[in-house]
Amino acid sequence: MEPISRNTQLIFALDVTDRNRAISLSEDIAGFADAIKIGYPLVLACGLEIIDAVCEFAPVIADFKVADIPNTANLICTRAFEAGASAVIVHGFTGRDSLLECVKTGREYRGGIFVVTEMSHPGAVDFMQQNAHALARLAAGSGASGVVAPATRPDKVRQIRSIVGNLTIISPGVGVQGGSATDAIRAGADYVIVGRNIYNSGNPKLEAERFVKEIEKCR
Amino acid sequence: MEPISRNTQLIFALDVTDRNRAISLSEDIAGFADAIKIGYPLVLACGLEIIDAVCEFAPVIADFKVADIPNTANLICTRAFEAGASAVIVHGFTGRDSLLECVKTGREYRGGIFVVTEMSHPGAVDFMQQNAHALARLAAGSGASGVVAPATRPDKVRQIRSIVGNLTIISPGVGVQGGSATDAIRAGADYVIVGRNIYNSGNPKLEAERFVKEIEKCR
Repeated sequence: MEPISRNTQLIFALDVTDRNRAISLSEDIAGFADAIKIGYPLVLACGLEIIDAVCEFAPVIADFKVADIPNTANLICTRAFEAGASAVIVHGFTGRDSLLECVKTGREYRGGIFVVTEMSHPGAVDFMQQNAHALARLAAGSGASGVVAPATRPDKVRQIRSIVGNLTIISPGVGVQGGSATDAIRAGADYVIVGRNIYNSGNPKLEAERFVKEIEKCR
Repeated sequence: MEPISRNTQLIFALDVTDRNRAISLSEDIAGFADAIKIGYPLVLACGLEIIDAVCEFAPVIADFKVADIPNTANLICTRAFEAGASAVIVHGFTGRDSLLECVKTGREYRGGIFVVTEMSHPGAVDFMQQNAHALARLAAGSGASGVVAPATRPDKVRQIRSIVGNLTIISPGVGVQGGSATDAIRAGADYVIVGRNIYNSGNPKLEAERFVKEIEKCR
């Protein structure tokens, strides 16, 4: 089951906190992005209803990085799916039982679960990097739809691909954070996630289109 | 700086999702609990404003188990403190930089940051248990107010105490989950966190009082 349909292979990270701007940007990039990723800063600022509002323009991935005990993880995923999310991003670090609970909830709602393997910030080396392969194996055996692997480290994307087989890989860190869409796709990412480069540009639509064209050339 | 005042040493985990019930329970246990812990299921159901509403009865600890890159972690903590939280619970496994950003945000709002060392569910053994001491050391060196350590494993609370010195230890898992308030306090916990035993009892006030009396006997 694919929670989002592969077309442009671009996911837009809507990392803003103003509702009007969020809606206007979503409208702008509709048609260019296969999904829009929304995190807690926007949800806490505008309420969970923002997911439903953004859904009008593209499927929503709730980037909640769920990291709690099984029952709470279930409740959080349930809320996200009920609000209209097509997929939820969760951590694997809190263990197999918590992850399985998220996957079970995802199945109930025919939604996807993406598991973080490694992150793109410097602090990821403290605890996460050395567990990235184990987290990818956990994800592969859990029934999750896919994993999150950093575009800033294409070699890691390649390694994760060899572990997760045909699971979906979504890759953040493209653009301002230093990752290249071309490198990430060539390393095996199914989707690249771009935020600031699009929403901070003078013309978000044009910038989204530019990424779509760059990705097209990799096929 | 102490985000909450030590009096009864009881923290009430308000793990319900209905606003009216949340308010009524908060009113019931006001005077018995030094703080009320609120998680995402309630916030996603009722909006972030629920923190402000509950604050009327006791200081609120936002149990958001923040596990994100530094900038997003900062935005999440900022929202929680702006909404009236006295402290935020965060993960340390996303690394030192993310944690330091939370601690910095806490300082700005004169609020506390509690770092998860180990959790009480079975899946905690998969990745977290072997890192619990390192996470406690990270917390101790970060300027955080305290740590979260499981009452279900008093020996762990004792070990964590020896690592974090005079940092505050808050301990979930008391009651239904199998932990004992007496054991946790004697092992070095400053506060025990009780949820279901109180909110699922026929008389939450009486049950909270019972825990307060049990803790008193440990002094």
